[in-house]
Amino acid sequence: MKIAARKQIGVIGAGVCGSESRAVAEAVGREVAKRGAVLLCGGLGRVMEAAAYGAKQEGGITLGILPGTLREEANLWIDIAVVSGMGHARNALIAQSSDALIAVSGEYGTLSEIALGLKMRKPVVVLEPGWKIEGVHRAKSPEEAVELVFSLIEGDEKS
Amino acid sequence: MKIAARKQIGVIGAGVCGSESRAVAEAVGREVAKRGAVLLCGGLGRVMEAAAYGAKQEGGITLGILPGTLREEANLWIDIAVVSGMGHARNALIAQSSDALIAVSGEYGTLSEIALGLKMRKPVVVLEPGWKIEGVHRAKSPEEAVELVFSLIEGDEKS
Amino acid sequence: MKIAARKQIGVIGAGVCGSESRAVAEAVGREVAKRGAVLLCGGLGRVMEAAAYGAKQEGGITLGILPGTLREEANLWIDIAVVSGMGHARNALIAQSSDALIAVSGEYGTLSEIALGLKMRKPVVVLEPGWKIEGVHRAKSPEEAVELVFSLIEGDEKS
Amino acid sequence: MKIAARKQIGVIGAGVCGSESRAVAEAVGREVAKRGAVLLCGGLGRVMEAAAYGAKQEGGITLGILPGTLREEANLWIDIAVVSGMGHARNALIAQSSDALIAVSGEYGTLSEIALGLKMRKPVVVLEPGWKIEGVHRAKSPEEAVELVFSLIEGDEKS
Repeated sequence: MKIAARKQIGVIGAGVCGSESRAVAEAVGREVAKRGAVLLCGGLGRVMEAAAYGAKQEGGITLGILPGTLREEANLWIDIAVVSGMGHARNALIAQSSDALIAVSGEYGTLSEIALGLKMRKPVVVLEPGWKIEGVHRAKSPEEAVELVFSLIEGDEKS
Repeated sequence: MKIAARKQIGVIGAGVCGSESRAVAEAVGREVAKRGAVLLCGGLGRVMEAAAYGAKQEGGITLGILPGTLREEANLWIDIAVVSGMGHARNALIAQSSDALIAVSGEYGTLSEIALGLKMRKPVVVLEPGWKIEGVHRAKSPEEAVELVFSLIEGDEKS
Repeated sequence: MKIAARKQIGVIGAGVCGSESRAVAEAVGREVAKRGAVLLCGGLGRVMEAAAYGAKQEGGITLGILPGTLREEANLWIDIAVVSGMGHARNALIAQSSDALIAVSGEYGTLSEIALGLKMRKPVVVLEPGWKIEGVHRAKSPEEAVELVFSLIEGDEKS
Repeated sequence: MKIAARKQIGVIGAGVCGSESRAVAEAVGREVAKRGAVLLCGGLGRVMEAAAYGAKQEGGITLGILPGTLREEANLWIDIAVVSGMGHARNALIAQSSDALIAVSGEYGTLSEIALGLKMRKPVVVLEPGWKIEGVHRAKSPEEAVELVFSLIEGDEKS
């Protein structure tokens, strides 16, 4: 039978990054899955792949919203793929579909998602170092980021 | 660990329909879930809701791609919601993200999804009665429709 | 100074078609421009190009809503290009941005635009032969099609 | 007859701003039109309206890419309206359809457009004060901003 809808946590970050960011993203994915939330991401490589891999190691569910027209572009750890065919415009869908966003490194694409998330009044947590934008929350570790994101979502629900 | 990606079957149809169409959609949803595929739909009421309900009765996973900006608009049986905020343009995402489409009744919105599916060379099965468009396959029962859709997908993969 | 907003007439049809359809589309473009309306289309070749060419011969303004990410893909007769990068999802923008649609031949992509136009309650005129869908208006010549489209738009405004 | 395609300059900025930003946006619109380029914007109020008004005072052409589903939401100075119905996802179309972007004040929506423009490797000029993001160019006056934008576009074409 139906239970209450799971939270959907978006993890955003670069398609190109170093091994440190990948380890951080994997840990974020693990923590999100441990708390029973769906891991939402852009479905491609690097930060997106590492986060999805982490979530799957903990038995989580992963959703990838791809920019292209081929499901085959999804990384191996994506359970459910939205094949948007919309290019960069899909960034708005990632922000809109997430209850909150966690940014791990990332460049201009990630910045656009942070900005869209803030515009939509979603909680946005940036792992340090990372984009410094007024209105985001900052965290020093994956555990802190996920802890913070869930407390912010619950705060939203009470208000 | 990761297993092979599940098929994603889109069930499309009217947001307004009679009880017969709802029973048909529920049966389609059940059959899709029994075969281990994800049930993809527009996430709203009537045909979309009945198909998602059917899938959940068989322990399936359901994905709704919503036209609006609020997750709360999803019907109760949607596990994972893409909150597109794109209105009718989201119909293209439903078609693009489905390995095949099954249409249950439906009006112009459904017709646009059938046309987009055909344009993208996806197998499209219409349950009788329903839109008569060159290139679609037709089925007389939910069981026949789902049987047909899976044989068409497998045929695609061999070719 | 500002004058009343021009009507925007969408001309839809195949990216692949014979010389007869091109001549028809060019005539439609001419008639649309003679009446002072903006010619809106998908911006690519064949029917879209012929319609835009016709409009420019009469000093009209042409708008192309492209599916890809490069403005260079627009045909030579497009004054203003929207570079959507959205693939088939741009069909919804063509329908939504048009006060009325005229279809010249066309296949599944065109059918999706006809269906979206009808869903959005826009007047849709199909030049014979062409898609036979309940709710469209039919015309035998470019002149009749454009005449009909403008009478339908004005009818809408009075109601 | 056809002449070379006009440049399309996107002016982005807040839907809520003070009278100083409106005067700046109007001056930017004037300068863009004087140089024969199309003024592209989000089609709504404040910065978007002032820029379009400025362009029309100089006989320019204005294109508005609206987030909603009603053309009536366009400001009075929009010649051609794309009625996207896509909400915030339309920001990607504004960036993708512009040869370069000029930002006048603006909040998170504007920041998302700046980030998308940079991601797409478009020249982006921010009028001071305004978002300080690595990779943007900055200008102190409307004249300087427009001068800079055209020199950057021409530099792109030579490279």
